[in-house]
Amino acid sequence: MGKEVRAVEWRGDRLRLLDQRLLPDREVYLELQTAAEVATAITDMAVRGAPAIGITAAYGVVLAASQHRREHRRDWRQEIEQDLVLLGRTRPTAVNLAWALERMRRRLHACQGEPEDWLLAEARQMHQEDIAANRHMGALGADLLGPDCAVLTHCNTGALATGGYGTALGVVRSGYRSGRIKQVYADETRPWLQGTRLTAWELAREGMPAQLIVDSAASYLMSLGRVQWVIVGADRIAANGDVANKIGTYGLAVAARHHGVRFMVVAPSSTVDMALASGTEIPIETRDGAEILALGERRLAPAGVAAWNPVFDVTPAKLIDAIVTERGVVRAPDAMSMRRLMAAG
Amino acid sequence: MGKEVRAVEWRGDRLRLLDQRLLPDREVYLELQTAAEVATAITDMAVRGAPAIGITAAYGVVLAASQHRREHRRDWRQEIEQDLVLLGRTRPTAVNLAWALERMRRRLHACQGEPEDWLLAEARQMHQEDIAANRHMGALGADLLGPDCAVLTHCNTGALATGGYGTALGVVRSGYRSGRIKQVYADETRPWLQGTRLTAWELAREGMPAQLIVDSAASYLMSLGRVQWVIVGADRIAANGDVANKIGTYGLAVAARHHGVRFMVVAPSSTVDMALASGTEIPIETRDGAEILALGERRLAPAGVAAWNPVFDVTPAKLIDAIVTERGVVRAPDAMSMRRLMAAG
Repeated sequence: MGKEVRAVEWRGDRLRLLDQRLLPDREVYLELQTAAEVATAITDMAVRGAPAIGITAAYGVVLAASQHRREHRRDWRQEIEQDLVLLGRTRPTAVNLAWALERMRRRLHACQGEPEDWLLAEARQMHQEDIAANRHMGALGADLLGPDCAVLTHCNTGALATGGYGTALGVVRSGYRSGRIKQVYADETRPWLQGTRLTAWELAREGMPAQLIVDSAASYLMSLGRVQWVIVGADRIAANGDVANKIGTYGLAVAARHHGVRFMVVAPSSTVDMALASGTEIPIETRDGAEILALGERRLAPAGVAAWNPVFDVTPAKLIDAIVTERGVVRAPDAMSMRRLMAAG
Repeated sequence: MGKEVRAVEWRGDRLRLLDQRLLPDREVYLELQTAAEVATAITDMAVRGAPAIGITAAYGVVLAASQHRREHRRDWRQEIEQDLVLLGRTRPTAVNLAWALERMRRRLHACQGEPEDWLLAEARQMHQEDIAANRHMGALGADLLGPDCAVLTHCNTGALATGGYGTALGVVRSGYRSGRIKQVYADETRPWLQGTRLTAWELAREGMPAQLIVDSAASYLMSLGRVQWVIVGADRIAANGDVANKIGTYGLAVAARHHGVRFMVVAPSSTVDMALASGTEIPIETRDGAEILALGERRLAPAGVAAWNPVFDVTPAKLIDAIVTERGVVRAPDAMSMRRLMAAG
């Protein structure tokens, strides 16, 4: 396996998914053959990261077509439509999922005959476009950095969270390779510890100088002048530039502004939802409190304790210095500059 | 056992310590008979919390006296002095430790004959004074709250962290009992999870309506208007009112100011170190990165990953609305108001 792992891959007639819940202890791949299996894998977070979820769901539509064409000679279009709905309900916050499914739906409607090959071609193209977008964003984002930077990132936005290369972590990769980034700090990112388990895993493979911190140490790190940029991904960006991303992102943005540390969001334009005027309209997923109260099989909290577990938060555009997309960079984003970006398509 | 557990207790000729590393899974008590055992218990965090550490170290001096009086007929004063130094080196940030040891040292020097009974009386008095101070601070702090408050606390500052009752959690207790606090949020407090394991345990025993959150969810909680006060303890307070406390406290203060949420620090006056002009002079303990990279026996991060693990941070006085001590409340603390407080003693 190369430096950049392939977390989502089409192989023959099925979808091969790296089960990210087991990393870094074990590299186990799931072989999925139905859209229902794909839906479960997304809901249960075997795959996560907004772009990776979108691509996975797209391949799920290919599986739906194969299965229903095989099993239902007459009603297959209706059955595929039901799977599109099922896949769309797996997770609420990331909009790449809805975007990818809508693109697959259009492709399905556009073809008269047997759709399998067309759908597979569309999913593959989406996947390739995502990787290309990431590489382009990596270059655009790295260009914003000054020399000898130290950066802080949150959650995992690397090859594991995308089609490959990464969004925010793609910028970190490009910045490191071009010599601008000298040191990377990664938040451990509770409760799922994507930073500890996934980002650290990717950084270690590249040999980047990196240190993990607990999420709550970020402000102290900034107060010591040890980072110049916070670089994060996004699960949905509203029309005014407000950004929904992994819980903790908003606190980083507040702290960054307080300390004069700059704040960059990196996401493909498929993450932008022009239908939502502002971040307050973005649905924020709240998951089971058990994800905080236990770690795997090990219970951490005493019985009878409750937890509130929102897994995303919303960072207002006014705290963001730059949104980097494959269409270009928006500095100090607002409704007008976001509209201009999306119109430039 | 009553609602308020006794984490530190003198029993007969030895010190009985609740091993807080094993909570909430198991309630195991350590029986300590030498100062060296006490020093290890403090360093390894079987006991934690600035006031509890001070009291534990004081009882450690009693054990030193018993042991060295028994074993060394001539040099016992010198041997006790060596144990005082040993105990003083266990953890660097909390000043209550140095304060308690200095008080014991003075008591030792003041008595001409057999010191054991005098030292035990001094340690017991310190312990009782701490509980009384906590109850008084509880009332003073609760008086600052408006009606129907929701509060957020960090780490554990309850009966487990003190002689009994608690500092910040003492205010939460008093506020709940007086009806002013309707809802408590507790940060899980990585990496040791004192919130999940200890604070949640204490809150559950009192039947307080409480919810755990991951540390990084605090800013989002504040943005939703769901808390009015952040209430935390302190490990050391400089002469200008800057506060060293558990890592994450500073980020909470930054976020609280951003959202107009009020910020209260609760600590006995023994936590104030008038010898340090500001928080930049407070030594901040950095512990082994392994505390972040693993949870108990379970490794979380891949091999070869490094971590930066500062376990305290410094909150500047200007972000603090009130410091509550047993001597009274200092609002908007600065060098002058802190000097006035400490002179009032």
